[in-house]
Parts: sequence; structure tokens; C-alpha cells
Amino acid sequence: MTITITAFESSPDQGRGLARDMRVRWALEEVGQPYVTRLVSFAAMKEPPHLALHPFGQIPTYEQDDLVLFESGAIVLHVAERNVGLLPADADARARAIGWMFAALNTLEPPIVDSEMARLFDRDKPWYDDRRAVLDERVHTRLRELSARLGAAEWLDGDFSAGDLLTVTVLRRLERSGMIEGYRNLANYVARGVARPAYQRAFAAQLAVFESSQAANG
Amino acid sequence: MTITITAFESSPDQGRGLARDMRVRWALEEVGQPYVTRLVSFAAMKEPPHLALHPFGQIPTYEQDDLVLFESGAIVLHVAERNVGLLPADADARARAIGWMFAALNTLEPPIVDSEMARLFDRDKPWYDDRRAVLDERVHTRLRELSARLGAAEWLDGDFSAGDLLTVTVLRRLERSGMIEGYRNLANYVARGVARPAYQRAFAAQLAVFESSQAANG
Repeated sequence: MTITITAFESSPDQGRGLARDMRVRWALEEVGQPYVTRLVSFAAMKEPPHLALHPFGQIPTYEQDDLVLFESGAIVLHVAERNVGLLPADADARARAIGWMFAALNTLEPPIVDSEMARLFDRDKPWYDDRRAVLDERVHTRLRELSARLGAAEWLDGDFSAGDLLTVTVLRRLERSGMIEGYRNLANYVARGVARPAYQRAFAAQLAVFESSQAANG
Repeated sequence: MTITITAFESSPDQGRGLARDMRVRWALEEVGQPYVTRLVSFAAMKEPPHLALHPFGQIPTYEQDDLVLFESGAIVLHVAERNVGLLPADADARARAIGWMFAALNTLEPPIVDSEMARLFDRDKPWYDDRRAVLDERVHTRLRELSARLGAAEWLDGDFSAGDLLTVTVLRRLERSGMIEGYRNLANYVARGVARPAYQRAFAAQLAVFESSQAANG
């Protein structure tokens, strides 16, 4: 019966809620499902017991009874399909909401992660400025397109859905870059997402893990 | 009733079946659903009529009655959910197969596309060799992990599923790089995928589009 997820023992994002367990926590909070968290170290993630759950040695995983899932998108979809609150009842609207889940992870996230990785790891390279310009333009292309589609709407397609949940978590990765600030409707969209009580509970839960890891190391 | 998909009028992959309409064609062939294809030019993809279907101005799209979908992963999942043949009947096995769909698109595809893009566009850059080494190692990490999980199995989790379908199309992008050759079980896995009659029919359909575009331009 109990849902168990995994998360970083010590998150590299310093408790900013950018690790992928945040998506699963948020989804579970939206539908009111309690869960327990098992923390894994970077070393343990690459060891056989965790690789048996997640072949790519990452977090999060999801365990309930005999079911083991990996991939945050798949876990969020599983939670959305088995509970009320994250997918519309109408079949066509439901398919479109799932479409936004894939768009968040396969169209929006890759250029955003590339741009983020370059900022983190390539700053000292002689080609950093050139490359950053190319990568940032790819991100801006997607932001322009997303902003045009969202328009004045509150969420991407009708009520808040798992598609919005993933999109907000992906856009949040741009926070420190300032790139989203030129797209007022997208910045407001992210603000609406993070203001949701379920998001706030999920954020507090992952922050508490980071803070206790700091206390333990201090 | 009729299913209409969109594809490139003139595919940049020269008919090699690497464009994302191939995934949708293959899925429709696996479940025996006929479809018609509407071809779009690069210019038309960025014009309002196509953007109304696909906010990011790409192919493929999927239209049936009042439903419009974009994102190849979402379309394949929609086809898999509404027909027999691409997802197991058991609920847990079905969730795991959907997990592999997300893994193909969010964990395997991004480093593979990055490596492919560098080969295509960055060859003349002074930093190409350094960067290619980093990108290729990211791909090899995923291939090692996937190879370890697949082991001697025929497909990733039980019978052939939509998860295998997407994984095979993603791994095919590595064909010209030779990177997959060091992973015998993965190379055989891809070979099993492309040998499927449904794959062959889908491949022939997209190749016919490319060949007629060449004839029209010649």
C-alpha cells in the first residue's frame, strides 16, 4: 500500500526544489497521496540495489506493492492516472494534457538543461560565450513559442494538469538565468504553479531533507 | 474517423526514417490503423495554420475527429492506449512499458541528439574534439546502462511495447556514429525492431515521400 519514492541524500541543487523528486512529490501532494522517502547517496545510486530499481542510476524511483517505476514523467503520469486531480475526465482533453507532459520533457527540457549545464560546467572554456549564445537562443525560441500558445490563459489547456506540473518544474530551472523574465505570461504562469498549496508542501518536504543533510554534515 | 498525421515535405534525413513521424507511422502500422499523411514544408511549419496544431512548429501532428495532438511520444501513447498491441494488459506491466517510453525520450534521446548535433554543426569549431569526447561519453554511459539492463532479453520488459518502439527509434539515430556497435545486445535489439513487418511498412511509407520529393525537385 505504502508509496515509497527515492530522492538525493544531499541534493546538488541545495534544496531549491529542482531535483526530479520534486515533480513526484508535487503530484502526490496534488492528489492527496501520502508517501515515504528513501534517501540515496551518489555512490549508492550507482550500486546494484538501486540499479535494480533504476537502470540509469538516478532518482526518483517509485515503489508501491510489486510495482517499481523510474522516470519522473512516467511516475507523475502513473499517479495522475490512478487518482483524481491531475488529468481531465474528457478523453480528448486528457490526451492533450498528456501531450503537454511529453512536450515539457522532450521539447522544453533538453535545451533548458543544455543551457544550464553550459553555465555550470563550461564557463572557463574559450568558446563559452559563443556556445552560450547558441544555446540561449534555442531556449528563447521555445519560450517564445510557449508564450505565444499560453497567451492570457491561466494554464496550458483548461484546468491545471500534470502537463502544467511538469512544465512549471522545467521552466523553474531557468530561474537564475533570468531568461524567463522577458515573457511576462510565462513568469506569471510559473508563479501560479509554485503558489499552489500542494507545490508548497512538496517544496517544504524536499527542503527539509536538504536542511537536515546540512545539519548532519555541519 | 480518418487519422491524419503530418510529416516533412522534404525530410532532412534523406529518407532514412529518423524524422519523428517514423515513430507514429510505426505505431499505427503495429496496431493496424490506416492513416493519411499531410506534408508540410519548413516554411509552412512556422506559419499560423500549422502552429495552431503544433505550438513548437514541428512534425508530427495527429488529427482524428476533434482531437489534435503533437509530440511523437504523446501520439504513440495515444495510439497504444486506444488499440491492442503496444501495451501489456496487466496494469503494472503497462505502467513499466510507459516508463520506458519516457526513458527513451527524456533520458536516452537528449544526449544522443546532442552528440548528433555536434557532429552535424560543430565539426569546424576549434573545440570540436574536446566537446565531442564529452558528449560521446554521456552517450556511452547511457548505452552501458541500457545494455546492462537489457541483458539477454529480447525486449526491455516482456513483450514488444511502445517503450521498445521509441527506444529503437532513438538508438537508430546513432547508426552512422558506430557508437552502438560495441554493445552487441543493443545492436541486435535494434535489428529486431527494424525487422518487424510494421516497421518495414512504416519505413517504406516515409521513404516513398522522400523519393517523390526528390523526383519533384529533380
